[in-house]
Amino acid sequence: MTTLYLLSTGPGDSAYLPPIAQQALAQSQHLVAYGLYLDLLGNLTDNKQRHELPLGKEIARARLALNLAADGHSTALISSGDIGIYAMATLVFELLDTPKERAQNPKWENITIEVIPGISAIQALASRVGAPIAHDFCTISLSDLLTPWDVIEKRLHAAGEGDFVIAFYNPLSHKRQWQLAKAKQILLDYRPATTPVMIGKNLTRDNEIIIYTTLENLDIKQVDMLSLVMVGNSESKQIETAQKKWVYTPRGYNTL
Amino acid sequence: MTTLYLLSTGPGDSAYLPPIAQQALAQSQHLVAYGLYLDLLGNLTDNKQRHELPLGKEIARARLALNLAADGHSTALISSGDIGIYAMATLVFELLDTPKERAQNPKWENITIEVIPGISAIQALASRVGAPIAHDFCTISLSDLLTPWDVIEKRLHAAGEGDFVIAFYNPLSHKRQWQLAKAKQILLDYRPATTPVMIGKNLTRDNEIIIYTTLENLDIKQVDMLSLVMVGNSESKQIETAQKKWVYTPRGYNTL
Repeated sequence: MTTLYLLSTGPGDSAYLPPIAQQALAQSQHLVAYGLYLDLLGNLTDNKQRHELPLGKEIARARLALNLAADGHSTALISSGDIGIYAMATLVFELLDTPKERAQNPKWENITIEVIPGISAIQALASRVGAPIAHDFCTISLSDLLTPWDVIEKRLHAAGEGDFVIAFYNPLSHKRQWQLAKAKQILLDYRPATTPVMIGKNLTRDNEIIIYTTLENLDIKQVDMLSLVMVGNSESKQIETAQKKWVYTPRGYNTL
Repeated sequence: MTTLYLLSTGPGDSAYLPPIAQQALAQSQHLVAYGLYLDLLGNLTDNKQRHELPLGKEIARARLALNLAADGHSTALISSGDIGIYAMATLVFELLDTPKERAQNPKWENITIEVIPGISAIQALASRVGAPIAHDFCTISLSDLLTPWDVIEKRLHAAGEGDFVIAFYNPLSHKRQWQLAKAKQILLDYRPATTPVMIGKNLTRDNEIIIYTTLENLDIKQVDMLSLVMVGNSESKQIETAQKKWVYTPRGYNTL
């Protein structure tokens, strides 16, 4: 049995890569990933066979990783953040759950899969700004490439109704610009205009940017494809210490 | 300026403790935590001054950590999982945001706070069972000690309406037994009885238990205080390979 690691590399800085992920990387001869994620690993990928497939080639990446492992090569399929959250892990299971794919690739049965979780962008941003996801939260991807917009819009209303802290993944791209503005407009019907909003880019990396704003002042132009956008709930508060600004969400009501 | 680390130790096994957390631990002379979390760190806590305060003494723990750091002692306030998710980090900011506390403790201004995120139980369980949180998900604490039950019930309905994958933290305790049964009953109005449900206990630890069940068959008696309960969305699927059972949530609709 050859192991296929579904390997998370965290937000970027390798100081966030736990021993279990380092060991999986050390044991993998073949690495399959979008190239940027491999570059972030620096010399941890030395002497490995790199298989870099571009954005948009996600299914091909998952299939290649399964085939390499099935052929007896120790392999890691790699995503940044947590590979289980809006990333590659699920595609491996979708392929295994597709009868035609599985019939064509009987050798896939011999693979042992090990999923290694990692720090996702929502946690990296939360840690930079304080404790905004200390109470009930949700994540919503604003990409309508694979999910119909009406499903996303239903979730936006549900998140508003439920007063969840929200992290928006895939907030926009070159081709998708209006979705975040629409999300902002919907949420303004449910929570105060002054609700804290945080934008994080390149989290834990050299060029990290953190922006503190509010729901009404959220400026779509400050957001890019690599940003995470977080919206507090109606209880989230911003404070300031000598060190910096912080945002936290109380763990309950009247706890102090 | 003395640093107060708000330090996450992940699900339990120290193989999940990244270098940044190991370094923070090495630099801290004083460790403040619930005792069990320190025990899980094993010899990483050798030669440190341990301050173990029991469950229920959360505010006292946060205040002690602030006071130790303000007195110039390098200090780590420690939670298992991610300290930013249903854990201690937010209490430090609540204390800093309480005028009376801050007026009584002017030395708190001299502290530098650094929050170090970690793998939360939702990610540990997800990694053990496949890729259940690959699409929009939410977390809900079922503890009504600090949050009124009507707020929790509103969130349960919102999570149902929005078809979010759900992770229940604090599903029950000795004194709270009916909340999870009520949550199950509410969700059965929104998603199929056959929806995959997973229970995880002692994740990544020696006595780890993973239970696969369905929403209609969820047996409250299989859940304890240290469990995480995860409920798939209407698209989540269970499959079986030669290795084991897996649950995944597709990243979108008709992606293959």
